[in-house]
Amino acid sequence: MTDHLGPALEGTSPGTSPGVTAARGFRASGVTAGLKASGTPDMALVVNDGPRQAGAAVFTTNRVVGAPVVWSRQVVADGVVAAVVLNSGGANVSTGPEGFLDSHMTAERVGAALGVSAGDVVVCSTGLIGERLPRQVLLDGVDLAADALGDDGLAAATAIMTTDSVPKTAHVTVQTPDGTFTVGGMAKGAGMLAPALATMLCVVTTDADVEAPVLDSVLRSATARTFDRVDSDGCMSTSDTVALLASGASGVTPPRDALADAVLRVCASLARQLVADAEGASHDVAVHVTHATSESAALAVARAVTRSNLFKAAIFGNDPNWGRVLAQAGTVPEDVAPFDPEAVDVSMNGVMVCRAGRPHADRTEVDLAADREVHVVVDLHAGDASVTVWSNDLTHDYVHENSAYST
Amino acid sequence: MTDHLGPALEGTSPGTSPGVTAARGFRASGVTAGLKASGTPDMALVVNDGPRQAGAAVFTTNRVVGAPVVWSRQVVADGVVAAVVLNSGGANVSTGPEGFLDSHMTAERVGAALGVSAGDVVVCSTGLIGERLPRQVLLDGVDLAADALGDDGLAAATAIMTTDSVPKTAHVTVQTPDGTFTVGGMAKGAGMLAPALATMLCVVTTDADVEAPVLDSVLRSATARTFDRVDSDGCMSTSDTVALLASGASGVTPPRDALADAVLRVCASLARQLVADAEGASHDVAVHVTHATSESAALAVARAVTRSNLFKAAIFGNDPNWGRVLAQAGTVPEDVAPFDPEAVDVSMNGVMVCRAGRPHADRTEVDLAADREVHVVVDLHAGDASVTVWSNDLTHDYVHENSAYST
Repeated sequence: MTDHLGPALEGTSPGTSPGVTAARGFRASGVTAGLKASGTPDMALVVNDGPRQAGAAVFTTNRVVGAPVVWSRQVVADGVVAAVVLNSGGANVSTGPEGFLDSHMTAERVGAALGVSAGDVVVCSTGLIGERLPRQVLLDGVDLAADALGDDGLAAATAIMTTDSVPKTAHVTVQTPDGTFTVGGMAKGAGMLAPALATMLCVVTTDADVEAPVLDSVLRSATARTFDRVDSDGCMSTSDTVALLASGASGVTPPRDALADAVLRVCASLARQLVADAEGASHDVAVHVTHATSESAALAVARAVTRSNLFKAAIFGNDPNWGRVLAQAGTVPEDVAPFDPEAVDVSMNGVMVCRAGRPHADRTEVDLAADREVHVVVDLHAGDASVTVWSNDLTHDYVHENSAYST
Repeated sequence: MTDHLGPALEGTSPGTSPGVTAARGFRASGVTAGLKASGTPDMALVVNDGPRQAGAAVFTTNRVVGAPVVWSRQVVADGVVAAVVLNSGGANVSTGPEGFLDSHMTAERVGAALGVSAGDVVVCSTGLIGERLPRQVLLDGVDLAADALGDDGLAAATAIMTTDSVPKTAHVTVQTPDGTFTVGGMAKGAGMLAPALATMLCVVTTDADVEAPVLDSVLRSATARTFDRVDSDGCMSTSDTVALLASGASGVTPPRDALADAVLRVCASLARQLVADAEGASHDVAVHVTHATSESAALAVARAVTRSNLFKAAIFGNDPNWGRVLAQAGTVPEDVAPFDPEAVDVSMNGVMVCRAGRPHADRTEVDLAADREVHVVVDLHAGDASVTVWSNDLTHDYVHENSAYST
């Protein structure tokens, strides 16, 4: 089963979990540096007190990336991460050499405050593209954040919010024969979510005692099945970063599968929370593509459907317009997803409105208004692979928020 | 210069042209068969009275296609087209064998009424997917349309409208040493416009005396540079059809280039009219990508920008958010469009807001509210190729129209 977002929230204490401080060996803080005009918290710091300081990260695949991404790619290359500093109020993208220096100096300041190497400090920024951050405000904010370090991971999760309406946190604790280990995390992002990540920052921490290459492998596997399967509006950000840090403070080195499963669950919970808080959405839409010839084929069809503005607008109107689902499936080239269009079934909230490419149950039997969650099943009748991609509907509020964002 | 949509409307009498009856040798009609609940005209017929009855067509590349597309592909295979019958009020897509029989019988009825072979009658349908058309209403409508045939091409253009607010027609007359020839056409489509055509029906007629293979070549070249460069909402339809018919009634066999240019101008005018009438749009947005390494590279970047909901929502808000332009350009893989992100300039309505990947002129200098047309230039500084793609902004009205369409 490849659907990791369905029961994603179970047992992860979504939104109330301390997130990055749930695992032993980590401190965090969230403070108001003054980067946001709104005066709300805008700077977060996550520190790994060890004994181990292993780290890995995945970044946006966009060719236009922010200075923090350029910096942080270098930081994680050696597998050592001592801290992550994150700011909202500006993405520091398309800001030239001075912008890069802003990120570099931020890491230096964190290093000085914590007594670690700047080269072990991951930097993340989110907000508007194309504007410099006020350097002194940024650097003073680092000192504030360092002074505020403690066990309040929720404060950190709150400080990285932009258009998010709630902080996103989750954690799971796993029992092993050698003792327990915990994986916890926080994320932000409420728009611009896309297949290759999106203005989405996420820090996951664990007290498991594992080396960086294992973290890297486990993290890539988890993000491919969670954040990569969330597509709010098809737009790929320039700043996406998901970092995974291990402190080793539990003294437990779990089997790889146990760690992978725990990281997957935390990432799935956070990804599901992102969908639930997407800008202006009134529905969370799960597109389940079943009986595809391969996972990549299923994924291609699911993404084609979740990227259709017409489909998403219909969901907003509580209109079970399965023709728009089928039309999107048909845009996927045959070599990418082999299937017979005249064999496809489409069900919406449990009602099979299209069978073998033709009308089946009456569309009036479908009730989309009853619940925020909408489930669409596209059965290709071509193979054994299944994939679920989560998305949102296209609403008046989405248009409003995104037409007014920078002004 | 590859921008055929800029001065597209010049000399083509947009909207007031008789369209398909501008060229000699053609009759047309538009009548109310009763397919639409609204009671407005819903069936059009275009007849080629010869002496030649050459024809060619291009269709949607969607794998899910309507019965009319399946039928009409067969019709044009031999290069002979005697008539085109078009209905609004239902797309006849995903309707099974009975739906195919509806299209077949429609062609038979046209053949009987005109004394031509059903196998030479192109059928086009537009409207909701997944619902059968009422067969008797359809067939009675054919008789009505045959009885009404005359020189009122505008009536035909009106009968194929769905959510269009105005009929789209255009024609040009060209002087050659051997006499004049005319190319005229009509189109419908106001949403679902996409790179590989869209719920877009278009019939172009000419009295030039040319054979079907020439028509086919000229038509493919014109659609690639016009309809394929209009992207209203990134959704690809199941019914798109563009047909080109030649009657030979002028007795003129123009040089291929002269015919190609005239067909291109008519297609460009119709494509530009589609953008101007796109569902719920408040801005027509031209994205000009310049100095790309190839036309395909430029096209990939332009389409990436015009498909961004965030960019399109910003335009609706009259917000010159060039960061969203740059971020979209960055989503195009380097092997598809080689360029250095730190060399890219972005201008909006003549103001260079981003130079070499960094902020340049203040964004407040850009006035997007003054005019319906918005021009964005993305200069890649990588080569000599340029492309323009036209799109629209993403508005509250788009969401409204597309959430309420089928209900």
